[in-house]
Amino acid sequence: MTKSANNNQLNANGELRHFLTIEGLNRNLLTDIMDRAETFSSVSHQHVKKVPLLRGKTVVNLFFENSTRTRTTFELAAKRLSADVINLNISTSATSKGESLLDTLHNLQAMQCDMFVVRHHESGAAEFIAANVAPHISVINAGDGCHAHPTQAMLDMFTIRRHKGAFPDLRVAIIGDILHSRVARSQIQALSTLGVGEIRVIAPKTLLPSNTNTLGVHVYHDLEAGLKDVDVIITLRLQSERMDGALIPSQREFFSRYGLTNERLALAATDAIVMHPGPINRGVEIASDVADGPQSVILEQVTHGISIRMAVMAMTLGSHAN
Amino acid sequence: MTKSANNNQLNANGELRHFLTIEGLNRNLLTDIMDRAETFSSVSHQHVKKVPLLRGKTVVNLFFENSTRTRTTFELAAKRLSADVINLNISTSATSKGESLLDTLHNLQAMQCDMFVVRHHESGAAEFIAANVAPHISVINAGDGCHAHPTQAMLDMFTIRRHKGAFPDLRVAIIGDILHSRVARSQIQALSTLGVGEIRVIAPKTLLPSNTNTLGVHVYHDLEAGLKDVDVIITLRLQSERMDGALIPSQREFFSRYGLTNERLALAATDAIVMHPGPINRGVEIASDVADGPQSVILEQVTHGISIRMAVMAMTLGSHAN
Amino acid sequence: MTKSANNNQLNANGELRHFLTIEGLNRNLLTDIMDRAETFSSVSHQHVKKVPLLRGKTVVNLFFENSTRTRTTFELAAKRLSADVINLNISTSATSKGESLLDTLHNLQAMQCDMFVVRHHESGAAEFIAANVAPHISVINAGDGCHAHPTQAMLDMFTIRRHKGAFPDLRVAIIGDILHSRVARSQIQALSTLGVGEIRVIAPKTLLPSNTNTLGVHVYHDLEAGLKDVDVIITLRLQSERMDGALIPSQREFFSRYGLTNERLALAATDAIVMHPGPINRGVEIASDVADGPQSVILEQVTHGISIRMAVMAMTLGSHAN
Repeated sequence: MTKSANNNQLNANGELRHFLTIEGLNRNLLTDIMDRAETFSSVSHQHVKKVPLLRGKTVVNLFFENSTRTRTTFELAAKRLSADVINLNISTSATSKGESLLDTLHNLQAMQCDMFVVRHHESGAAEFIAANVAPHISVINAGDGCHAHPTQAMLDMFTIRRHKGAFPDLRVAIIGDILHSRVARSQIQALSTLGVGEIRVIAPKTLLPSNTNTLGVHVYHDLEAGLKDVDVIITLRLQSERMDGALIPSQREFFSRYGLTNERLALAATDAIVMHPGPINRGVEIASDVADGPQSVILEQVTHGISIRMAVMAMTLGSHAN
Repeated sequence: MTKSANNNQLNANGELRHFLTIEGLNRNLLTDIMDRAETFSSVSHQHVKKVPLLRGKTVVNLFFENSTRTRTTFELAAKRLSADVINLNISTSATSKGESLLDTLHNLQAMQCDMFVVRHHESGAAEFIAANVAPHISVINAGDGCHAHPTQAMLDMFTIRRHKGAFPDLRVAIIGDILHSRVARSQIQALSTLGVGEIRVIAPKTLLPSNTNTLGVHVYHDLEAGLKDVDVIITLRLQSERMDGALIPSQREFFSRYGLTNERLALAATDAIVMHPGPINRGVEIASDVADGPQSVILEQVTHGISIRMAVMAMTLGSHAN
Repeated sequence: MTKSANNNQLNANGELRHFLTIEGLNRNLLTDIMDRAETFSSVSHQHVKKVPLLRGKTVVNLFFENSTRTRTTFELAAKRLSADVINLNISTSATSKGESLLDTLHNLQAMQCDMFVVRHHESGAAEFIAANVAPHISVINAGDGCHAHPTQAMLDMFTIRRHKGAFPDLRVAIIGDILHSRVARSQIQALSTLGVGEIRVIAPKTLLPSNTNTLGVHVYHDLEAGLKDVDVIITLRLQSERMDGALIPSQREFFSRYGLTNERLALAATDAIVMHPGPINRGVEIASDVADGPQSVILEQVTHGISIRMAVMAMTLGSHAN
């Protein structure tokens, strides 16, 4: 599926037609996305926070898994591009009348919708949908199972670039539940592609995927060791709702070993930034005074998330013009 | 109720003020609706899929019965006319605080809303509402009980006209659950008004209404006999959720006797088109290879549905200008 | 909290920055709100019911307590000011993933939202939120617990002014469940501030708050006595869902003692107007023939509610320009 995904998301000119995964995208393209987001950052600060770029286009938020926060960021991004937005929560919709996913898709595209923003609990769902839509439609992956969450990864890269400039000299540590995290998968791919100096993952063995040794990352089971001299610290949400069985003894135990506190943060570079994809479990992945402290850029990530989503929407729909 | 409905939906100049039922509308008016839809068909293909016709108007989707698909088509049609749209799912709303339907309506019209798109599980609901709204408001029936679904019927007529041109020489067959189908009732009225050559209904006795002999249709209980030489085949959704009791032995049995297969389709005219109002029960009313085959126009119906709804919205709200 | 609230909702120039409570606002400001609403009243009657005042602004309906009717009025007001609107029903949202209220707020403001319209079951919630948002954000209280519902109070004042002109010579009676009514609290504050001649509250002892004697109102337990010669009658919704225990014997008993009938209405001034915040319990607080009768202005209140909400939104967001 990876192969077809790579082909899938680029058109014949190498432009972004869908945005499904970081995998297979090159450094230039990731840089283009960030450069485009930079142009939209100012829009959100204007008196009138709107540009007419997608006026008359219809964006469908196709959410098979509930996520008010993510849906809201895409809805805002689309509206600030002047698109019309339809929110469909599919679990409570047509499929309850027994219609198949493909029939739902084909109906929506017959209604001349232009973009599907897809959130799904199954890995590969966005790619499956992209492989089955009409040529005029773009698909954006807003998170599929444990597979990918590419807009989250790109807003993280954008946040890092804004604070650190270039990537090659950076040491980046990702802490926590790597195993269940589509965010971590997409981040590691993006960091690698952007040529970051060193990527560390810090986690107990039970929260690491079996293929960790193929990811080009340094593994640490000890948080203090892993944090030493890093420039960027990415804490991950503990996906407790995804854990079937006892992969960690308790949330309290997790915090005592892997929670980011000010003492531990002091081991990193003095100007290290602290990131988290949200929503935060305070006192589980991260202490409140770190989350709210001067090195935290967690709320900036949210702001940049709108710009990145505007960029990806504008680029994918723009690709059809060629 | 029929009489008042007919008067109700036309203004003093004979223009469409509400759109409640096909009954009582003449051939010229149905043709006007299709002609107007033709002008909107191009809008959905433009780069900017929007016309400013209803800018500043407020359309309320007043759904007492859940139907994401139908609501979405009306929402898209209204937004492409530049209207503001409010979605109200009434079952979970004001009425739970004990407010009456009329109080809800009067409140919405006091808020200066301009149009109610009504879906209701009871026959006659849209007409009741139309009879009780202020003069500045238009009501569109988006399906009421087993009574009528006039926009569905008109999009079907529009689809037929696009493929077949004129109506008088056509043989049209409607297959399946006529008894519970507001779609079938509205289709038969529209086909009769447009002067179609022959209307056939094909169904087991248990799925035919008791007044079938007054409808001006030819009844067939045998699918093969009924399909012979027809130009248009309309399959209906088996409304299993509406069947209280065992009107049919099983879905499998229904398909074996009344399901549209390629073998059976071959009995019709070679250029016959196959229609279905959706959502499809594959393998119940229709075989998958027919639904997805070259004679199927099912997804075209969905596309035309947007144009027809835009036409009816523009015509009814436009009638207040006079 | 009152003190900080008063400071909170005005900026350094004494302009309305938030709108949280009537308490602490002076007569000039309440008059300004009504004057501004007057300018918007005409907008709702225009052919294009929209002004571009808040184009590009994002209004978030942050409803922690379900109220379709109130949400709809704010959504319409925002859309007629050309704002983008996001509806968030928080009970079913992020907090289910364990995020705190403040984290939700901080995320929404990081998304560059401009206004939170807050409905909450706890008194003081809107003030708490206003005390914790960034300087660029305005908060509108759409009802918090038993505390305040200031836009409802102002639309009531606006309705009274339209019918009666000046306030000083008026006798106003408020009937019913004063104890649980945030509407009544806000109305009494507004009427006092506007210098109304006499405010009467008419209720059984069990439905009066313990501090009634500090409110500057005349208390009547007998409806007939209380209605004598009043110019404005405000009936309140019997908040049966808020009554824990048997504060009243039964709804029927309540109506027999405190329900507004035509016989009782005849005791008031001949040109007295009858008001109710809705939704009405017909035959509980008010007889149907009074609610629908010539002295009722209940539906006018709904219409004016849109203008008042437009006014408050325009004024609070406009205050940031200074």
